[in-house]
Amino acid sequence: MGTTEDYECPRRVPVPPSKPFLKSLQTSLKETFFPDDPFKQFKNQPTSWKFLLGLQYFVPILEWAPRYTFDFFKADLIAGITIASLAVPQGISYASLASIPPIIGLYSSFVPPLIYAMLGSSRDLAVGTVAVGSLLISSMLGKEVSPTENPEQYVRLVFTATFFAGVFQASFGILRLGFIVDFLSHATIVGFMGGAATIVCLQQLKGMLGLVHFTHETDVVSVMSSVFGQIHQWRWESAVLGCCFLFFLLLTRYFIGHLKKGLNPLSTSELVFGSPHLMAAVKTGIIIGVIGLAEGIAVGRTFAMFKNYHIDGNKEMIAFGMMNIAGSCTSCYLTAGPFSRTAVNYNAGSRSAVSNIIMATAVMFTLLFLTPLFHYTPLVVLSSIIVSAMLGLLDYEAAIHLWKIDKFDFFICLGAYLGVVLGSVEIGLVIAITVSLLRILLFVARPRTIVLGNIPNTGIYRSMDQYPIAKTVPGILILQIDAPVYFANASYLRERISRWIYEEEDRLKSVGETSLHYVILDLSAVGSIDTSGISMFEEVGKNVDRKGLKLVLANPQSEVMKKLHKSKLIDTIGQEWIHLTVGEAVAACNFMLYTCKPDPVVVDYNAQDNNV
Amino acid sequence: MGTTEDYECPRRVPVPPSKPFLKSLQTSLKETFFPDDPFKQFKNQPTSWKFLLGLQYFVPILEWAPRYTFDFFKADLIAGITIASLAVPQGISYASLASIPPIIGLYSSFVPPLIYAMLGSSRDLAVGTVAVGSLLISSMLGKEVSPTENPEQYVRLVFTATFFAGVFQASFGILRLGFIVDFLSHATIVGFMGGAATIVCLQQLKGMLGLVHFTHETDVVSVMSSVFGQIHQWRWESAVLGCCFLFFLLLTRYFIGHLKKGLNPLSTSELVFGSPHLMAAVKTGIIIGVIGLAEGIAVGRTFAMFKNYHIDGNKEMIAFGMMNIAGSCTSCYLTAGPFSRTAVNYNAGSRSAVSNIIMATAVMFTLLFLTPLFHYTPLVVLSSIIVSAMLGLLDYEAAIHLWKIDKFDFFICLGAYLGVVLGSVEIGLVIAITVSLLRILLFVARPRTIVLGNIPNTGIYRSMDQYPIAKTVPGILILQIDAPVYFANASYLRERISRWIYEEEDRLKSVGETSLHYVILDLSAVGSIDTSGISMFEEVGKNVDRKGLKLVLANPQSEVMKKLHKSKLIDTIGQEWIHLTVGEAVAACNFMLYTCKPDPVVVDYNAQDNNV
Repeated sequence: MGTTEDYECPRRVPVPPSKPFLKSLQTSLKETFFPDDPFKQFKNQPTSWKFLLGLQYFVPILEWAPRYTFDFFKADLIAGITIASLAVPQGISYASLASIPPIIGLYSSFVPPLIYAMLGSSRDLAVGTVAVGSLLISSMLGKEVSPTENPEQYVRLVFTATFFAGVFQASFGILRLGFIVDFLSHATIVGFMGGAATIVCLQQLKGMLGLVHFTHETDVVSVMSSVFGQIHQWRWESAVLGCCFLFFLLLTRYFIGHLKKGLNPLSTSELVFGSPHLMAAVKTGIIIGVIGLAEGIAVGRTFAMFKNYHIDGNKEMIAFGMMNIAGSCTSCYLTAGPFSRTAVNYNAGSRSAVSNIIMATAVMFTLLFLTPLFHYTPLVVLSSIIVSAMLGLLDYEAAIHLWKIDKFDFFICLGAYLGVVLGSVEIGLVIAITVSLLRILLFVARPRTIVLGNIPNTGIYRSMDQYPIAKTVPGILILQIDAPVYFANASYLRERISRWIYEEEDRLKSVGETSLHYVILDLSAVGSIDTSGISMFEEVGKNVDRKGLKLVLANPQSEVMKKLHKSKLIDTIGQEWIHLTVGEAVAACNFMLYTCKPDPVVVDYNAQDNNV
Repeated sequence: MGTTEDYECPRRVPVPPSKPFLKSLQTSLKETFFPDDPFKQFKNQPTSWKFLLGLQYFVPILEWAPRYTFDFFKADLIAGITIASLAVPQGISYASLASIPPIIGLYSSFVPPLIYAMLGSSRDLAVGTVAVGSLLISSMLGKEVSPTENPEQYVRLVFTATFFAGVFQASFGILRLGFIVDFLSHATIVGFMGGAATIVCLQQLKGMLGLVHFTHETDVVSVMSSVFGQIHQWRWESAVLGCCFLFFLLLTRYFIGHLKKGLNPLSTSELVFGSPHLMAAVKTGIIIGVIGLAEGIAVGRTFAMFKNYHIDGNKEMIAFGMMNIAGSCTSCYLTAGPFSRTAVNYNAGSRSAVSNIIMATAVMFTLLFLTPLFHYTPLVVLSSIIVSAMLGLLDYEAAIHLWKIDKFDFFICLGAYLGVVLGSVEIGLVIAITVSLLRILLFVARPRTIVLGNIPNTGIYRSMDQYPIAKTVPGILILQIDAPVYFANASYLRERISRWIYEEEDRLKSVGETSLHYVILDLSAVGSIDTSGISMFEEVGKNVDRKGLKLVLANPQSEVMKKLHKSKLIDTIGQEWIHLTVGEAVAACNFMLYTCKPDPVVVDYNAQDNNV
């Protein structure tokens, strides 16, 4: 390759045979919705076995329970009791973040973990209420119904929102829309969680300074003006001593109110579908549902990676959805997979989802016999639980990592953080999602085009920027298009390619070199193309023709070849100008430039040759 | 390449030197917003010359007017008078589509063309009112204020919407957001325009059948039930004869109402910014603005291609915006670049935007002296003008072309069409935009991965699907990732790659071949990557390690290398396992497999070798 004597044997790029439309539709639907091929185990099995496998697929506990051993149980028992001891105070604290009675926080650690243990595919995830979800509930539903003035209606609204969160989660899983969660990037989640943690910690200033009147807004400016606007109200003793003797000073000052004994009451009658606040419940449901999934699936995947097993995103969604639907009917509010509790579970040596069952059992005993004791839990303990959990969410190391690797990701993260801290939780969320989507659209609308040069003494062509050793080929401009071509970037690419051509012509003119004769487009990276992309190539071809140049294509993939063929563009360009490699395309151009034979000899692609 | 003796001389892939953050930001902003490099002509010019060039840039007429010749004028005069003869009846007809007084349609062919002639960059575009825009105005604003009951307020709202359309258009251009228009794909526009044409034609049944009561809905079901629900009301004579003697029968039946003489009155005081319908005006403004731009710029580009000159999308947006802002202040409603009128202009031999000036002058004379004559225009003439223009919009050939080349594009087109025909214009628009965006997100979320095989007797590796002649290399799985890797597709790719690996292992087991030892990822097509993408590679690496395999990378581009380096992943994988070509990676793997030396000799990349 790379020298003219090779030229006699270019290999033709074949036009792939066209598949029936339905078959290609089926293939692409399968690739889109079932990339993990969940049905592979069902192939070639008898029907009864298929039924059992299907049941095991939807209820994973049936698959692993028969293999469960006593050794596993011992490990799970310790882990389960450990997380239960965390679940009770966390449940009470997060319920106060969500502005609901603390007992609902305890209820939420009983039913949902049982459901998850049956349906979930993670062995380490510890189910429970989550700080950010609780905060979102109080900030979104608190605007509709005041939790202090109308507590009963507020709680009903919380159950309804939880129900919708479950419905959305389960339907995402059933419809195999797992990729929705992928659109919340890691950067936005880090920024969003950090921002939420910051404002939750700021809210604790109220308790720390002993302020009675406090703003209902969550942004930094309101909180700070609320704090500094009433300096004369500060209880200096509590502020000064609070820093030193926080725990001992406030130990006996506040109690959390009455906690009644007994298991979860049914709450199906509390779900309100006819209220004027239904839309607010639906909106809150979809938002807390997606946030819960994003956190839960990310946590599940992280720990699955440590132990080398696989988490099925769609199955997880169904499990999360079912546990929230069941939860909303049994006086529980939103549950997901909090990172802190899962980490404790993992470190305590959990082996399977049985640790969730143990935790639920321990919480059940607490509910039946021990709740009156928690009446004496001091508020400051709750505050310290919240603050310490929140500090774990302030993942500044991840932010530094983002800054080092990808500045743009860092700014997305910072935007989400500032949106939450300076605006509100919803504003932060909207900023995070908008910026993530904008980034995708920018990626899509502005693909890169690269000028390739020859690496001396080889037939290899690589980016001139990346490999300073690469040399241009006289009279030939080689461009690589670095993304699928479709309507969103077709007109950008057309403009960018014509700019490359005139820039190259200008450069050649200024250094007095031979003028341009060929433009080679390397299409190795163009995995797919639509009609707008084909029109773009058509226009580029005409444009290049008009300048007296010739367009040459190198290494088009099968989809591009198929559509070039269907649109007859292949005949306009000429099949003999479509080459298997850039090296062969350059050889053909050089042959035409220096040997000047009008028609190149094209050898059939299947012919044997020794062109290595 | 491809044989083990080459192995001694692999070329290293260099880690590019890191650029200062601000410089790379500047480069990427320039690529994003100024892909056409509009400032290239300003480089190295004296200040006064820069000022003149800048003025010429924003007011293109200053650039071409000095070179304008009498020959050009003769051609433009003929073209201008031709399109004026089309502009007058079209203006009246489309005004009736927008439910506004016909005279406003005439006004709209006077001021806006003059503005466009100064600011626009197309030489062929004929400015005028557009059918779809008119229809959108009456269907969106007619819901707010009834054009029959409260005509004055309705007209004020139309002017305000036109004003906002202009403001949005101009600001898109100034902010260089030209790519917004690119997100309306050709397929959606074909479907949407076809649907709009269909319902406009259906509306003409009212006049054809002489029905007095008629539905205000636009969908097929309502119109048909309105038509067939009052069969006894059909004027059979008009229906039957209408088919044969349409023109003669109805010639003298209806007149279009009073048309007063005189040029456009000022309408600045008619713009209502304080009304309760302001939001409707803003919403209508942005929609008709974007639709107008999408049609106008597409038309401009099509004709520019015939004559081999360039249309600057952002400049066009500013021109369209200015002409609509000026129009809204001088009693004009939305104007854009209708295809039909532009085609007539082009065929009549127009040479420059002067034909628009001629048309405006002709319309001015009409307004001053001839308007009373148009009082006698029969309604059926208007109907026939509308129907004939609409039939041109029913681009069934384009739909067939879409079906042939890309079935998915065809279904997008069909969806937009059915949305308009069965729902309403807005529903069709929402469907078209949603489906287009979904298609982008799908493209982005589900990139293709391809298994590569060796083309016998060469060092070339290509898709096994596309080239049936390609052979797998024993013990090595070669995968090509076909798109930029980032958060939206990272977890899909992780799952898909692990599925490829276990499928290959299964296949090897079933045929009893040597087991898998190496996984080579060909990254030629991965133009960019973000932190989620880097984490994905990290996880794939760990996953592959755990299975006792080795991950090898081939041809990573500079951005990938930079980020692999920054994240230290390059050390985890091992620099010696990153190769310049797939061929060299395979050679290295084969060398390790069959020669079993633990450490490969790595020769410096710059060393001379004859490895061709």
